[in-house]
Amino acid sequence: MNEFELIEKLVSLLGDTTHGGGINVGPGDDAAVLSTGADEQLVVTTDVLIEGTHFPPRSRSDLIGYRAIAVNLSDIAAMGADPRFLTIALTLDRVEEEWVEGFAKGIVFCASKYGVKIVGGNIARGALSVAVTAIGVVPDGQCLLRSTACDGDDIYVTGAIGAASAAVRDGVKIPLLELNELWLRRVDDISCRYFMPVPQLQMGIALRGVASAAIDISDGLVADLGHLIRSSGVGAEIDLSRVPVWKSLDAEIAIEASDDYELLFTAPPQEYEHIVDLAAGVSTEITRIGKVTAGEAVSVSGVVGFADLSRGYSHF
Amino acid sequence: MNEFELIEKLVSLLGDTTHGGGINVGPGDDAAVLSTGADEQLVVTTDVLIEGTHFPPRSRSDLIGYRAIAVNLSDIAAMGADPRFLTIALTLDRVEEEWVEGFAKGIVFCASKYGVKIVGGNIARGALSVAVTAIGVVPDGQCLLRSTACDGDDIYVTGAIGAASAAVRDGVKIPLLELNELWLRRVDDISCRYFMPVPQLQMGIALRGVASAAIDISDGLVADLGHLIRSSGVGAEIDLSRVPVWKSLDAEIAIEASDDYELLFTAPPQEYEHIVDLAAGVSTEITRIGKVTAGEAVSVSGVVGFADLSRGYSHF
Repeated sequence: MNEFELIEKLVSLLGDTTHGGGINVGPGDDAAVLSTGADEQLVVTTDVLIEGTHFPPRSRSDLIGYRAIAVNLSDIAAMGADPRFLTIALTLDRVEEEWVEGFAKGIVFCASKYGVKIVGGNIARGALSVAVTAIGVVPDGQCLLRSTACDGDDIYVTGAIGAASAAVRDGVKIPLLELNELWLRRVDDISCRYFMPVPQLQMGIALRGVASAAIDISDGLVADLGHLIRSSGVGAEIDLSRVPVWKSLDAEIAIEASDDYELLFTAPPQEYEHIVDLAAGVSTEITRIGKVTAGEAVSVSGVVGFADLSRGYSHF
Repeated sequence: MNEFELIEKLVSLLGDTTHGGGINVGPGDDAAVLSTGADEQLVVTTDVLIEGTHFPPRSRSDLIGYRAIAVNLSDIAAMGADPRFLTIALTLDRVEEEWVEGFAKGIVFCASKYGVKIVGGNIARGALSVAVTAIGVVPDGQCLLRSTACDGDDIYVTGAIGAASAAVRDGVKIPLLELNELWLRRVDDISCRYFMPVPQLQMGIALRGVASAAIDISDGLVADLGHLIRSSGVGAEIDLSRVPVWKSLDAEIAIEASDDYELLFTAPPQEYEHIVDLAAGVSTEITRIGKVTAGEAVSVSGVVGFADLSRGYSHF
């Protein structure tokens, strides 16, 4: 069983506990969407980073903290929500003052940059891992879901693809600079891309009411597009030559690269000019890379294949 | 550094990221209290269970799932909130279908019993652990906090103290019965007390506007009373002979016993009759065990000592 099969199995076993009672969107999207009676909906997501799996052993603790928050904010971005609150559950095998101070510095730095508050957490002894739950808000009914793409929509991606994965392939180098120096390089320096992914929050919010569907690219462009088309019951055609890749990376490798945390979204063709304006308004690069189709397969530059989920990043 | 010192240090390092922006109560209580614009407040808490630390190795996966949810609901109970939503982040080192099915069964069983929904989660490879985030709601301003006890208040506890800890001391026995059989025995059978703690949700809700402060007993009665009086800037006197202990347990041992998940709360003396009625209304045993004082120490039957936090359960 790979991660996606396991999640599917678990969710099916959960039955009625995932429906009703104020749940607008339950398990299966980037985040849950919940009603509590206000004219806003809550958007809630949880993601865990484990040493050796989601970051290299003996990484800088400030970068671990930063990355743990940033990847969760990326899920909030993919919902078009405005992030508000975080809880952080840390397990660590020993308490070293310097490590803890660094970790705190990293989470404060990231939380402050994105205007989100840390409201609670938990600490326990165990193998080093960080579980973050992020809570955001969105006006009623304006969430970007992954299940609502339509035949004929254009497919877009923000930024360029493949940098984080290239960093992993070459062995992630632990940067030596201070956080504020790294922050300035987070988009252009490959050593920062892995630890400081850029959650596309402004773009997500800008796309409310415009995009037909969205997902963040954590597992890889093809894999996450696969999630999106399966959820939406559609197919997709990608033009490989249009995929914006990190520097000189091979596009065929880039479309399977994980950890980019760019936004993949769809919109009706008539929204093109509007989306270009919105992207310019939030200084975000976007590229139209393909079309949603009526089928149920992803084809890349004419090579048709069913979305092969296992080719993206799978957690098992 | 013990767990509490570590948390204090971390929270102090977090600075402004734990204040403002809709946070009514940040880190330091059983759960955070958040405003999102509705006439209800959100109550959010996170707790992690790690194999070997918070449950015995090779425990039944349904009981692990059950316990992970129940302990988080206990924090919601201690806030007087109504639990609504859960996210569950599971890390496990290998995927065994039977294990996963059992785990799902346990979380569904517990979530269904307490009317709470599972809205999302995460799965990753790593040492076995379960991180749960629980979200509840409470009418504006009606949360039970740990920081609002007053000199002269009575101190109460629900149920009886020490069973879970006695089970641990004797070596937790993995029960053999099905979940629904165990559920019927959860209050009276010591082998169930550890895996199926009873979150005092009805009592917590009943105490809105009546109790002056509340906390759940996870670390031990004295330790958690220590948290409460430190938060409130008061002291406490406990009458050892009044502490309701599990069967023939020694009261001196019971007051330091962890994992009971009973509710410890305070209220003005004139509320006594009212509280007896409220407790009867939700079929919950309560016992008045002492008084809040003007000091800053916990005294137990005349033996005065500063609350020694390290004598309760500390996670380091």
